[in-house]
Amino acid sequence: MNEYLLPLELMVEQLGQLPGVGRKTAAKYAFHLLELPQEELEQFCATLLDGKRRIKSCKHCNNLCEGEVCTVCADAKRANGQICVVEDVKTLMAMERAGTFKGCYHVLGGALSPIDGIGPDQLDLLGLLERIDHDAITEVILATNPTVEGETTALYITKLLKNKELKITRLACGIPVGADLEYADEMTLSKALEGRMALN
Amino acid sequence: MNEYLLPLELMVEQLGQLPGVGRKTAAKYAFHLLELPQEELEQFCATLLDGKRRIKSCKHCNNLCEGEVCTVCADAKRANGQICVVEDVKTLMAMERAGTFKGCYHVLGGALSPIDGIGPDQLDLLGLLERIDHDAITEVILATNPTVEGETTALYITKLLKNKELKITRLACGIPVGADLEYADEMTLSKALEGRMALN
Repeated sequence: MNEYLLPLELMVEQLGQLPGVGRKTAAKYAFHLLELPQEELEQFCATLLDGKRRIKSCKHCNNLCEGEVCTVCADAKRANGQICVVEDVKTLMAMERAGTFKGCYHVLGGALSPIDGIGPDQLDLLGLLERIDHDAITEVILATNPTVEGETTALYITKLLKNKELKITRLACGIPVGADLEYADEMTLSKALEGRMALN
Repeated sequence: MNEYLLPLELMVEQLGQLPGVGRKTAAKYAFHLLELPQEELEQFCATLLDGKRRIKSCKHCNNLCEGEVCTVCADAKRANGQICVVEDVKTLMAMERAGTFKGCYHVLGGALSPIDGIGPDQLDLLGLLERIDHDAITEVILATNPTVEGETTALYITKLLKNKELKITRLACGIPVGADLEYADEMTLSKALEGRMALN
């Protein structure tokens, strides 16, 4: 279906690859970009390419960074023996926004998912093992998502670390703060009950 | 609020300029683009710049085109004396998708809106007048939006053309096909009643 002029059609196709963007939204973006002055569109593209060029992976934890080591790993105060294992940088950033975790991170780069062809070799598990051996880690907090893939990954890592003298923990599952119990799904309610805390 | 690394922050800012895109969506797009292989991101940017370079305005009607004249103006069969005046290319494309109009178009490039600083000089009215004088136009269909700005523009053009021997028409306002009368707004219902058609 070539609804637009070819160069516009190609723009729509490219913009349609953005996550959650359908054809109509892609066309809206394409028209907006077409209407920009030449230099602004050039700035737009230059910024994207420049970001890609300047942003690297931290050699320790795979967090985003500009140099070789990210700001978390570069901060000596954060080498407190705790390492928080996350699937991706977005989760790491969410943890940093929460601001209560004072240790280091390790970004796996995904979660085990045989259907999508993601096995242990696709995740940075070697890097994690190396850091556990060298960085005097005492606790590994598994902060993978509470999904099938995330749980599988947590289980896999737990087995991988079973011979090491380490505390291995998992983020608590339960009712989100501010939520209405009436609308909580069954799985979350069950998990919340399972993990109930004594108040006295 | 510099939540991200500077180059990423700049990417988020640029992507946040797309219509309807907030900070969260822009960040989602930025992460997606960062994860693309270098050559795919280069292709993405090249396509946008190439589109901007290749797509021009038709010298007659301001429709998008690759050469000097758009496909509608280049089609001799469409010079039937009817000219449909639209605010923008998106409306022109919607009309073309409907497929019933067989004449030519004229894209104004907006609608009169003193608040936004858009006066008659910002619209291509001169081009419209010139075409009406030279192209043996018999009917001008004012297909500006049924908004305050669109109606004002239609009224302005009607006055501008009052000394010419022309049929001037306006698209019918009424109930959209398939809609439920129960949920039609008062203005639309009033317009639909006003424009009611005799069945016998």
